[in-house]
Amino acid sequence: MQNTRAASFRLYHFPLSPFSRKVRLSLAEKRIEVELVEERYWEPDHDFLRRNPAGKIPVLKVGNRHLAESAAICEYLEEIEPEPPLLPQSAEARYEVRRLVGWFDDKFYHEVTSKLLGERVHKKVMGGGYPDSANVKAGARAIKFHIDYMAWLLDQRRWLAGNELSLADFAAAAQLSCLDYISDVDWNRSETVKDWYAKIKSRPAFRSILADQLPGFPQPAHYADLDF
Amino acid sequence: MQNTRAASFRLYHFPLSPFSRKVRLSLAEKRIEVELVEERYWEPDHDFLRRNPAGKIPVLKVGNRHLAESAAICEYLEEIEPEPPLLPQSAEARYEVRRLVGWFDDKFYHEVTSKLLGERVHKKVMGGGYPDSANVKAGARAIKFHIDYMAWLLDQRRWLAGNELSLADFAAAAQLSCLDYISDVDWNRSETVKDWYAKIKSRPAFRSILADQLPGFPQPAHYADLDF
Ligand SMILES: N[C@@H](CCC(=O)N[C@@H](CS)C(=O)NCC(=O)O)C(=O)O
Ligand SMILES: N[C@@H](CCC(=O)N[C@@H](CS)C(=O)NCC(=O)O)C(=O)O
Repeated sequence: MQNTRAASFRLYHFPLSPFSRKVRLSLAEKRIEVELVEERYWEPDHDFLRRNPAGKIPVLKVGNRHLAESAAICEYLEEIEPEPPLLPQSAEARYEVRRLVGWFDDKFYHEVTSKLLGERVHKKVMGGGYPDSANVKAGARAIKFHIDYMAWLLDQRRWLAGNELSLADFAAAAQLSCLDYISDVDWNRSETVKDWYAKIKSRPAFRSILADQLPGFPQPAHYADLDF
Repeated sequence: MQNTRAASFRLYHFPLSPFSRKVRLSLAEKRIEVELVEERYWEPDHDFLRRNPAGKIPVLKVGNRHLAESAAICEYLEEIEPEPPLLPQSAEARYEVRRLVGWFDDKFYHEVTSKLLGERVHKKVMGGGYPDSANVKAGARAIKFHIDYMAWLLDQRRWLAGNELSLADFAAAAQLSCLDYISDVDWNRSETVKDWYAKIKSRPAFRSILADQLPGFPQPAHYADLDF
Protein backbone atom coordinates (compact mmCIF):
# COMPACT_ATOMS: atom_id res chain seq x y z
CA MET A 1 0.00 0.00 0.00
CA GLN A 2 1.23 3.42 -0.88
CA ASN A 3 1.12 6.41 1.33
CA THR A 4 -1.79 7.96 -0.53
CA ARG A 5 -3.69 8.41 2.72
CA ALA A 6 -1.53 11.47 3.23
CA ALA A 7 -2.74 12.89 -0.09
CA SER A 8 -5.91 14.90 0.17
CA PHE A 9 -8.99 13.45 -1.46
CA ARG A 10 -11.69 15.60 -2.95
CA LEU A 11 -14.79 14.23 -4.67
CA TYR A 12 -16.74 16.23 -7.22
CA HIS A 13 -20.19 14.74 -6.99
CA PHE A 14 -23.92 15.36 -7.07
CA PRO A 15 -26.15 14.20 -4.19
CA LEU A 16 -28.52 12.08 -6.28
CA SER A 17 -25.88 10.66 -8.63
CA PRO A 18 -25.72 6.89 -8.08
CA PHE A 19 -22.15 6.63 -9.37
CA SER A 20 -21.04 9.35 -6.95
CA ARG A 21 -22.78 7.52 -4.13
CA LYS A 22 -21.01 4.27 -4.93
CA VAL A 23 -17.64 6.03 -4.62
CA ARG A 24 -18.72 7.84 -1.44
CA LEU A 25 -19.69 4.50 0.11
CA SER A 26 -16.33 2.93 -0.78
CA LEU A 27 -14.40 5.89 0.61
CA ALA A 28 -16.41 5.92 3.83
CA GLU A 29 -16.18 2.15 4.35
CA LYS A 30 -12.41 2.41 3.98
CA ARG A 31 -12.35 5.45 6.26
CA ILE A 32 -10.66 7.60 3.66
CA GLU A 33 -11.44 11.19 4.48
CA VAL A 34 -12.75 13.16 1.56
CA GLU A 35 -13.89 16.69 0.88
CA LEU A 36 -17.18 16.67 -1.04
CA VAL A 37 -17.71 19.33 -3.70
CA GLU A 38 -21.09 19.51 -5.36
CA GLU A 39 -20.85 19.83 -9.13
CA ARG A 40 -23.80 20.95 -11.20
CA TYR A 41 -22.37 18.97 -14.07
CA TRP A 42 -24.99 19.90 -16.65
CA GLU A 43 -24.03 23.58 -16.52
CA PRO A 44 -21.26 24.29 -19.02
CA ASP A 45 -18.15 24.77 -16.94
CA HIS A 46 -14.88 24.50 -18.76
CA ASP A 47 -12.94 24.09 -15.59
CA PHE A 48 -14.90 20.95 -14.75
CA LEU A 49 -14.62 19.61 -18.27
CA ARG A 50 -10.87 20.00 -18.15
CA ARG A 51 -10.79 17.83 -15.05
CA ASN A 52 -12.69 15.10 -16.86
CA PRO A 53 -12.98 15.06 -20.64
CA ALA A 54 -15.97 12.73 -20.34
CA GLY A 55 -17.80 15.57 -18.59
CA LYS A 56 -19.25 13.14 -16.08
CA ILE A 57 -19.30 12.91 -12.35
CA PRO A 58 -17.97 11.56 -10.06
CA VAL A 59 -14.42 12.85 -10.33
CA LEU A 60 -12.04 12.06 -7.48
CA LYS A 61 -9.09 14.36 -6.97
CA VAL A 62 -6.14 12.52 -5.41
CA GLY A 63 -3.16 14.80 -4.98
CA ASN A 64 -2.93 16.47 -8.38
CA ARG A 65 -4.69 13.78 -10.37
CA HIS A 66 -8.33 13.81 -11.36
CA LEU A 67 -9.87 10.36 -11.55
CA ALA A 68 -13.10 9.68 -13.43
CA GLU A 69 -15.20 6.54 -14.04
CA SER A 70 -16.61 5.20 -10.82
CA ALA A 71 -15.81 1.52 -11.45
CA ALA A 72 -12.13 2.31 -12.13
CA ILE A 73 -12.07 4.60 -9.08
CA CYS A 74 -13.43 1.87 -6.81
CA GLU A 75 -10.85 -0.65 -8.06
CA TYR A 76 -8.16 1.96 -7.44
CA LEU A 77 -9.37 2.56 -3.89
CA GLU A 78 -9.35 -1.18 -3.31
CA GLU A 79 -5.72 -1.34 -4.42
CA ILE A 80 -4.40 1.62 -2.44
CA GLU A 81 -6.48 0.81 0.66
CA PRO A 82 -7.28 -2.90 0.78
CA GLU A 83 -8.84 -2.76 4.27
CA PRO A 84 -11.65 -3.50 4.81
CA PRO A 85 -11.84 -5.47 1.56
CA LEU A 86 -14.71 -4.78 -0.82
CA LEU A 87 -13.51 -7.46 -3.21
CA PRO A 88 -13.08 -11.07 -2.08
CA GLN A 89 -9.97 -13.24 -2.63
CA SER A 90 -10.71 -15.88 -5.25
CA ALA A 91 -10.92 -15.07 -8.95
CA GLU A 92 -14.41 -16.63 -9.11
CA ALA A 93 -15.73 -14.58 -6.21
CA ARG A 94 -14.14 -11.39 -7.56
CA TYR A 95 -15.74 -12.08 -10.91
CA GLU A 96 -19.16 -12.33 -9.30
CA VAL A 97 -18.72 -8.98 -7.55
CA ARG A 98 -17.63 -7.28 -10.76
CA ARG A 99 -20.43 -8.86 -12.75
CA LEU A 100 -22.97 -7.43 -10.35
CA VAL A 101 -21.29 -4.03 -10.27
CA GLY A 102 -21.65 -4.06 -14.08
CA TRP A 103 -25.26 -5.19 -13.72
CA PHE A 104 -26.21 -2.26 -11.48
CA ASP A 105 -24.02 0.37 -13.17
CA ASP A 106 -25.15 -0.55 -16.66
CA LYS A 107 -28.38 -2.53 -16.75
CA PHE A 108 -30.12 -1.27 -13.61
CA TYR A 109 -29.05 2.31 -14.28
CA HIS A 110 -30.28 2.37 -17.86
CA GLU A 111 -33.47 0.39 -17.27
CA VAL A 112 -34.52 1.92 -13.98
CA THR A 113 -32.59 4.83 -12.48
CA SER A 114 -32.16 6.91 -15.61
CA LYS A 115 -35.86 6.41 -16.38
CA LEU A 116 -37.25 7.32 -12.97
CA LEU A 117 -34.67 9.71 -11.53
CA GLY A 118 -33.84 11.08 -14.95
CA GLU A 119 -37.43 11.98 -15.68
CA ARG A 120 -38.59 13.05 -12.24
CA VAL A 121 -35.53 14.87 -10.91
CA HIS A 122 -32.93 15.63 -13.54
CA LYS A 123 -35.39 17.10 -15.98
CA LYS A 124 -36.74 19.41 -13.31
CA VAL A 125 -33.35 20.38 -11.88
CA MET A 126 -31.81 20.90 -15.32
CA GLY A 127 -34.86 22.60 -16.73
CA GLY A 128 -35.69 19.90 -19.26
CA GLY A 129 -39.48 20.04 -18.99
CA TYR A 130 -42.08 17.54 -17.84
CA PRO A 131 -41.40 13.89 -17.10
CA ASP A 132 -42.09 11.54 -20.00
CA SER A 133 -44.68 9.16 -18.58
CA ALA A 134 -43.70 6.29 -20.91
CA ASN A 135 -40.21 6.35 -19.42
CA VAL A 136 -41.53 6.57 -15.88
CA LYS A 137 -43.80 3.59 -16.51
CA ALA A 138 -41.01 1.54 -18.07
CA GLY A 139 -38.75 2.29 -15.09
CA ALA A 140 -41.47 1.41 -12.58
CA ARG A 141 -42.05 -1.88 -14.37
CA ALA A 142 -38.34 -2.74 -14.64
CA ILE A 143 -37.56 -2.11 -10.97
CA LYS A 144 -39.90 -4.99 -10.04
CA PHE A 145 -37.86 -7.44 -12.09
CA HIS A 146 -34.66 -6.12 -10.51
CA ILE A 147 -35.98 -6.41 -6.95
CA ASP A 148 -37.05 -9.98 -7.68
CA TYR A 149 -33.62 -10.76 -9.05
CA MET A 150 -31.97 -9.31 -5.93
CA ALA A 151 -34.33 -11.36 -3.75
CA TRP A 152 -33.37 -14.48 -5.67
CA LEU A 153 -29.66 -13.76 -5.13
CA LEU A 154 -30.16 -12.92 -1.46
CA ASP A 155 -32.01 -16.17 -0.86
CA GLN A 156 -28.74 -17.94 -1.57
CA ARG A 157 -26.27 -15.58 0.08
CA ARG A 158 -25.92 -13.11 2.94
CA TRP A 159 -24.91 -10.27 0.61
CA LEU A 160 -25.53 -9.76 -3.10
CA ALA A 161 -22.33 -11.29 -4.47
CA GLY A 162 -21.55 -13.78 -1.69
CA ASN A 163 -21.38 -14.07 2.06
CA GLU A 164 -19.34 -10.90 2.53
CA LEU A 165 -20.29 -7.29 1.92
CA SER A 166 -18.73 -6.11 -1.34
CA LEU A 167 -18.69 -3.41 -3.98
CA ALA A 168 -21.72 -5.13 -5.51
CA ASP A 169 -23.82 -4.18 -2.48
CA PHE A 170 -22.63 -0.59 -2.71
CA ALA A 171 -23.32 -0.44 -6.45
CA ALA A 172 -26.88 -1.65 -5.81
CA ALA A 173 -27.49 0.49 -2.75
CA ALA A 174 -26.18 3.53 -4.61
CA GLN A 175 -28.88 3.14 -7.25
CA LEU A 176 -31.68 2.16 -4.87
CA SER A 177 -30.98 4.91 -2.36
CA CYS A 178 -31.34 7.56 -5.08
CA LEU A 179 -34.69 6.06 -6.04
CA ASP A 180 -35.72 5.80 -2.41
CA TYR A 181 -35.14 9.54 -2.06
CA ILE A 182 -37.95 10.06 -4.57
CA SER A 183 -40.04 7.24 -2.99
CA ASP A 184 -39.77 5.03 -6.05
CA VAL A 185 -38.82 1.81 -4.26
CA ASP A 186 -41.60 -0.51 -3.10
CA TRP A 187 -39.94 -2.12 -0.08
CA ASN A 188 -42.99 -4.31 0.46
CA ARG A 189 -42.20 -6.28 -2.66
CA SER A 190 -39.56 -8.38 -0.92
CA GLU A 191 -38.85 -8.83 2.77
CA THR A 192 -35.41 -10.20 1.84
CA VAL A 193 -34.40 -7.12 -0.13
CA LYS A 194 -35.79 -4.85 2.56
CA ASP A 195 -33.70 -6.64 5.21
CA TRP A 196 -30.63 -6.31 3.04
CA TYR A 197 -31.22 -2.58 2.59
CA ALA A 198 -31.80 -2.13 6.33
CA LYS A 199 -28.42 -3.76 7.00
CA ILE A 200 -26.63 -1.49 4.50
CA LYS A 201 -28.46 1.59 5.66
CA SER A 202 -27.35 1.14 9.25
CA ARG A 203 -23.66 1.10 8.38
CA PRO A 204 -21.66 4.18 9.39
CA ALA A 205 -20.55 4.48 5.74
CA PHE A 206 -24.15 5.26 4.79
CA ARG A 207 -24.61 8.24 7.09
CA SER A 208 -23.53 10.96 4.72
CA ILE A 209 -25.90 9.61 2.07
CA LEU A 210 -28.82 9.65 4.46
CA ALA A 211 -28.04 13.29 5.21
CA ASP A 212 -28.21 14.37 1.55
CA GLN A 213 -30.65 17.12 0.67
CA LEU A 214 -31.67 18.25 -2.79
CA PRO A 215 -33.22 21.74 -2.97
CA GLY A 216 -36.74 21.51 -4.34
CA PHE A 217 -37.02 17.84 -3.38
CA PRO A 218 -37.55 17.54 0.37
CA GLN A 219 -36.31 14.29 1.88
CA PRO A 220 -39.26 11.95 2.56
CA ALA A 221 -39.58 10.76 6.16
CA HIS A 222 -38.78 7.10 5.48
CA TYR A 223 -35.59 7.91 3.56
CA ALA A 224 -33.23 8.35 6.53
CA ASP A 225 -35.28 6.18 8.89
CA LEU A 226 -33.44 2.97 9.80
CA ASP A 227 -36.84 1.41 10.63
CA PHE A 228 -38.49 2.25 7.32
CA MET B 1 -3.08 -19.52 -11.15
CA GLN B 2 -5.65 -22.23 -11.19
CA ASN B 3 -5.84 -25.04 -13.60
CA THR B 4 -8.69 -23.48 -15.55
CA ARG B 5 -6.79 -23.95 -18.78
CA ALA B 6 -7.90 -27.55 -18.58
CA ALA B 7 -11.53 -26.42 -18.41
CA SER B 8 -13.13 -25.92 -21.78
CA PHE B 9 -13.99 -22.35 -22.73
CA ARG B 10 -16.93 -21.53 -24.93
CA LEU B 11 -17.93 -17.99 -25.90
CA TYR B 12 -21.46 -17.09 -26.94
CA HIS B 13 -20.94 -14.04 -29.09
CA PHE B 14 -22.03 -12.12 -32.15
CA PRO B 15 -19.49 -11.12 -34.83
CA LEU B 16 -20.18 -7.38 -34.75
CA SER B 17 -20.63 -7.12 -30.99
CA PRO B 18 -17.86 -4.90 -29.60
CA PHE B 19 -18.08 -6.41 -26.12
CA SER B 20 -17.72 -9.90 -27.56
CA ARG B 21 -14.72 -8.74 -29.56
CA LYS B 22 -13.03 -7.32 -26.49
CA VAL B 23 -13.30 -10.71 -24.78
CA ARG B 24 -12.17 -12.55 -27.91
CA LEU B 25 -9.08 -10.34 -28.09
CA SER B 26 -8.20 -11.00 -24.44
CA LEU B 27 -8.65 -14.75 -24.85
CA ALA B 28 -6.54 -14.83 -28.00
CA GLU B 29 -3.77 -12.66 -26.57
CA LYS B 30 -3.56 -15.00 -23.60
CA ARG B 31 -3.72 -18.02 -25.92
CA ILE B 32 -6.74 -19.46 -24.20
CA GLU B 33 -8.47 -21.72 -26.67
CA VAL B 34 -12.15 -21.05 -27.00
CA GLU B 35 -15.04 -22.45 -28.98
CA LEU B 36 -17.06 -19.62 -30.52
CA VAL B 37 -20.85 -20.00 -30.68
CA GLU B 38 -22.80 -17.35 -32.52
CA GLU B 39 -25.83 -16.20 -30.60
CA ARG B 40 -28.64 -14.30 -32.29
CA TYR B 41 -29.37 -12.68 -28.95
CA TRP B 42 -32.39 -10.66 -30.06
CA GLU B 43 -34.38 -13.79 -30.89
CA PRO B 44 -36.26 -14.98 -27.83
CA ASP B 45 -34.44 -18.09 -26.66
CA HIS B 46 -35.11 -19.20 -23.15
CA ASP B 47 -32.07 -21.38 -23.07
CA PHE B 48 -29.82 -18.40 -23.70
CA LEU B 49 -31.65 -16.25 -21.17
CA ARG B 50 -31.15 -18.92 -18.53
CA ARG B 51 -27.42 -18.71 -19.15
CA ASN B 52 -27.47 -14.96 -18.58
CA PRO B 53 -30.37 -13.23 -16.88
CA ALA B 54 -29.24 -9.92 -18.39
CA GLY B 55 -29.94 -11.42 -21.82
CA LYS B 56 -26.75 -9.87 -23.18
CA ILE B 57 -23.77 -11.21 -24.98
CA PRO B 58 -20.95 -12.03 -24.58
CA VAL B 59 -21.34 -14.99 -22.24
CA LEU B 60 -18.26 -17.08 -21.51
CA LYS B 61 -18.79 -20.67 -20.43
CA VAL B 62 -15.96 -21.89 -18.20
CA GLY B 63 -16.53 -25.44 -17.05
CA ASN B 64 -20.13 -25.34 -15.86
CA ARG B 65 -20.30 -21.62 -15.13
CA HIS B 66 -21.70 -18.99 -17.44
CA LEU B 67 -19.97 -15.64 -17.13
CA ALA B 68 -21.54 -12.41 -18.39
CA GLU B 69 -20.41 -8.76 -18.41
CA SER B 70 -17.36 -8.28 -20.55
CA ALA B 71 -15.43 -6.04 -18.15
CA ALA B 72 -15.80 -8.57 -15.32
CA ILE B 73 -14.88 -11.39 -17.70
CA CYS B 74 -11.67 -9.63 -18.78
CA GLU B 75 -10.63 -9.02 -15.17
CA TYR B 76 -11.30 -12.69 -14.47
CA LEU B 77 -9.17 -13.79 -17.41
CA GLU B 78 -6.40 -11.52 -16.17
CA GLU B 79 -6.53 -13.20 -12.76
CA ILE B 80 -6.60 -16.81 -13.94
CA GLU B 81 -4.10 -16.26 -16.74
CA PRO B 82 -1.83 -13.30 -15.93
CA GLU B 83 0.48 -13.86 -18.93
CA PRO B 84 0.87 -11.85 -21.05
CA PRO B 85 -0.42 -9.09 -18.76
CA LEU B 86 -3.18 -6.80 -20.06
CA LEU B 87 -3.16 -4.78 -16.86
CA PRO B 88 0.03 -3.07 -15.64
CA GLN B 89 1.47 -3.30 -12.11
CA SER B 90 0.97 -0.01 -10.29
CA ALA B 91 -2.40 1.07 -8.93
CA GLU B 92 -2.16 4.35 -10.89
CA ALA B 93 -1.43 2.62 -14.19
CA ARG B 94 -4.16 0.03 -13.58
CA TYR B 95 -6.58 2.84 -12.86
CA GLU B 96 -5.78 4.48 -16.19
CA VAL B 97 -6.43 1.24 -18.07
CA ARG B 98 -9.75 0.72 -16.31
CA ARG B 99 -10.79 4.33 -16.83
CA LEU B 100 -10.26 3.96 -20.56
CA VAL B 101 -12.02 0.61 -20.69
CA GLY B 102 -14.98 2.38 -19.06
CA TRP B 103 -14.62 5.23 -21.55
CA PHE B 104 -14.89 2.95 -24.56
CA ASP B 105 -17.44 0.50 -23.11
CA ASP B 106 -19.74 3.22 -21.87
CA LYS B 107 -19.14 6.60 -23.52
CA PHE B 108 -17.82 5.56 -26.92
CA TYR B 109 -20.35 2.76 -27.21
CA HIS B 110 -23.35 4.93 -26.40
CA GLU B 111 -22.22 7.99 -28.33
CA VAL B 112 -20.82 6.29 -31.40
CA THR B 113 -21.15 2.51 -31.83
CA SER B 114 -24.75 2.12 -30.78
CA LYS B 115 -25.68 5.05 -33.03
CA LEU B 116 -23.87 3.91 -36.17
CA LEU B 117 -23.81 0.14 -35.88
CA GLY B 118 -27.14 0.08 -34.09
CA GLU B 119 -28.87 1.99 -36.86
CA ARG B 120 -27.08 0.57 -39.88
CA VAL B 121 -26.66 -3.07 -38.94
CA HIS B 122 -28.70 -4.13 -35.94
CA LYS B 123 -31.91 -2.60 -37.22
CA LYS B 124 -31.52 -4.42 -40.52
CA VAL B 125 -30.44 -7.73 -39.02
CA MET B 126 -33.13 -7.64 -36.34
CA GLY B 127 -35.80 -6.37 -38.68
CA GLY B 128 -36.24 -3.01 -36.96
CA GLY B 129 -36.74 -0.86 -40.05
CA TYR B 130 -34.74 1.96 -41.60
CA PRO B 131 -31.80 3.72 -39.97
CA ASP B 132 -32.68 6.90 -38.09
CA SER B 133 -30.58 9.53 -39.83
CA ALA B 134 -30.43 11.80 -36.76
CA ASN B 135 -28.72 9.00 -34.84
CA VAL B 136 -26.36 8.24 -37.70
CA LYS B 137 -25.40 11.91 -37.91
CA ALA B 138 -24.85 12.19 -34.18
CA GLY B 139 -22.63 9.09 -34.23
CA ALA B 140 -20.63 10.35 -37.22
CA ARG B 141 -20.07 13.65 -35.42
CA ALA B 142 -19.11 12.03 -32.11
CA ILE B 143 -16.55 9.65 -33.59
CA LYS B 144 -14.44 12.65 -34.67
CA PHE B 145 -14.15 13.87 -31.12
CA HIS B 146 -13.20 10.37 -29.99
CA ILE B 147 -10.52 9.93 -32.65
CA ASP B 148 -9.05 13.29 -31.67
CA TYR B 149 -9.04 12.27 -28.03
CA MET B 150 -7.25 9.01 -28.92
CA ALA B 151 -4.71 10.95 -30.97
CA TRP B 152 -4.09 13.23 -28.02
CA LEU B 153 -3.49 10.25 -25.74
CA LEU B 154 -1.28 8.50 -28.29
CA ASP B 155 0.87 11.58 -28.70
CA GLN B 156 2.01 11.05 -25.12
CA ARG B 157 2.19 7.25 -25.00
CA ARG B 158 2.91 4.23 -27.16
CA TRP B 159 -0.45 2.63 -26.36
CA LEU B 160 -3.70 4.17 -25.20
CA ALA B 161 -3.26 3.78 -21.46
CA GLY B 162 0.54 3.84 -21.25
CA ASN B 163 3.63 2.40 -22.86
CA GLU B 164 2.36 -1.18 -22.82
CA LEU B 165 -0.50 -2.76 -24.69
CA SER B 166 -3.45 -3.19 -22.34
CA LEU B 167 -7.14 -3.96 -22.07
CA ALA B 168 -7.77 -0.32 -22.96
CA ASP B 169 -6.40 -0.88 -26.45
CA PHE B 170 -8.59 -3.94 -26.87
CA ALA B 171 -11.67 -2.10 -25.60
CA ALA B 172 -11.04 0.66 -28.16
CA ALA B 173 -10.13 -1.65 -31.02
CA ALA B 174 -13.21 -3.76 -30.32
CA GLN B 175 -15.46 -0.75 -30.91
CA LEU B 176 -13.50 0.68 -33.85
CA SER B 177 -13.16 -2.63 -35.68
CA CYS B 178 -16.95 -3.09 -35.66
CA LEU B 179 -17.34 0.37 -37.16
CA ASP B 180 -14.56 -0.29 -39.65
CA TYR B 181 -16.51 -3.29 -40.89
CA ILE B 182 -19.24 -0.88 -42.00
CA SER B 183 -16.64 1.65 -43.26
CA ASP B 184 -17.57 4.21 -40.63
CA VAL B 185 -14.05 5.07 -39.49
CA ASP B 186 -12.21 7.88 -41.26
CA TRP B 187 -8.61 6.69 -40.85
CA ASN B 188 -7.37 9.84 -42.57
CA ARG B 189 -8.39 11.95 -39.64
CA SER B 190 -5.30 11.03 -37.62
CA GLU B 191 -2.07 9.39 -38.72
CA THR B 192 -1.34 8.57 -35.07
CA VAL B 193 -4.59 6.68 -34.57
CA LYS B 194 -4.18 4.91 -37.88
CA ASP B 195 -0.68 3.75 -36.88
CA TRP B 196 -2.03 2.51 -33.57
CA TYR B 197 -4.78 0.55 -35.32
CA ALA B 198 -2.30 -0.90 -37.80
CA LYS B 199 -0.20 -2.18 -34.87
CA ILE B 200 -3.20 -3.78 -33.19
CA LYS B 201 -4.53 -5.20 -36.42
CA SER B 202 -1.32 -7.05 -37.17
CA ARG B 203 -1.32 -8.95 -33.88
CA PRO B 204 -2.12 -12.66 -34.11
CA ALA B 205 -4.91 -12.08 -31.55
CA PHE B 206 -6.74 -9.99 -34.15
CA ARG B 207 -6.90 -12.66 -36.85
CA SER B 208 -10.22 -14.19 -35.94
CA ILE B 209 -11.82 -10.74 -35.89
CA LEU B 210 -10.51 -9.92 -39.34
CA ALA B 211 -12.05 -13.17 -40.58
CA ASP B 212 -15.56 -12.28 -39.34
CA GLN B 213 -18.34 -12.28 -41.88
CA LEU B 214 -21.87 -11.02 -41.40
CA PRO B 215 -24.44 -12.34 -43.89
CA GLY B 216 -25.96 -9.45 -45.82
CA PHE B 217 -23.00 -7.20 -45.03
CA PRO B 218 -20.03 -8.18 -47.18
CA GLN B 219 -16.65 -7.37 -45.68
CA PRO B 220 -15.19 -4.25 -47.32
CA ALA B 221 -11.74 -4.72 -48.87
CA HIS B 222 -9.86 -2.46 -46.44
CA TYR B 223 -11.27 -4.21 -43.38
CA ALA B 224 -8.88 -7.16 -43.23
CA ASP B 225 -6.07 -5.40 -45.12
CA LEU B 226 -3.07 -4.74 -42.87
CA ASP B 227 -2.05 -1.93 -45.25
CA PHE B 228 -5.38 -0.14 -45.19
N1 LIG C 1 -19.55 5.41 -16.29
C1 LIG C 1 -19.60 6.61 -15.47
C2 LIG C 1 -21.01 7.14 -15.49
C3 LIG C 1 -21.17 8.40 -14.68
C4 LIG C 1 -22.44 9.11 -15.04
O1 LIG C 1 -23.20 8.72 -15.93
N2 LIG C 1 -22.67 10.22 -14.34
C5 LIG C 1 -23.83 11.05 -14.61
C6 LIG C 1 -24.47 11.53 -13.35
S1 LIG C 1 -25.14 10.20 -12.42
C7 LIG C 1 -23.33 12.23 -15.39
O2 LIG C 1 -22.38 12.88 -14.99
N3 LIG C 1 -23.94 12.54 -16.54
C8 LIG C 1 -23.55 13.63 -17.37
C9 LIG C 1 -23.36 13.20 -18.79
O3 LIG C 1 -23.64 12.05 -19.10
O4 LIG C 1 -22.94 14.05 -19.58
C10 LIG C 1 -19.17 6.28 -14.07
O5 LIG C 1 -19.38 5.14 -13.64
O6 LIG C 1 -18.59 7.15 -13.39
N1 LIG D 1 -22.19 -4.40 -20.18
C1 LIG D 1 -22.30 -5.51 -21.10
C2 LIG D 1 -22.88 -4.99 -22.40
C3 LIG D 1 -23.08 -6.06 -23.42
C4 LIG D 1 -24.02 -5.62 -24.52
O1 LIG D 1 -24.58 -4.53 -24.51
N2 LIG D 1 -24.20 -6.49 -25.51
C5 LIG D 1 -25.14 -6.23 -26.58
C6 LIG D 1 -24.55 -6.67 -27.90
S1 LIG D 1 -23.13 -5.71 -28.32
C7 LIG D 1 -26.37 -7.04 -26.30
O2 LIG D 1 -26.29 -8.22 -26.01
N3 LIG D 1 -27.56 -6.39 -26.30
C8 LIG D 1 -28.79 -7.04 -26.05
C9 LIG D 1 -29.61 -6.30 -25.02
O3 LIG D 1 -29.17 -5.23 -24.58
O4 LIG D 1 -30.66 -6.81 -24.65
C10 LIG D 1 -20.95 -6.12 -21.35
O5 LIG D 1 -19.96 -5.39 -21.26
O6 LIG D 1 -20.87 -7.33 -21.58
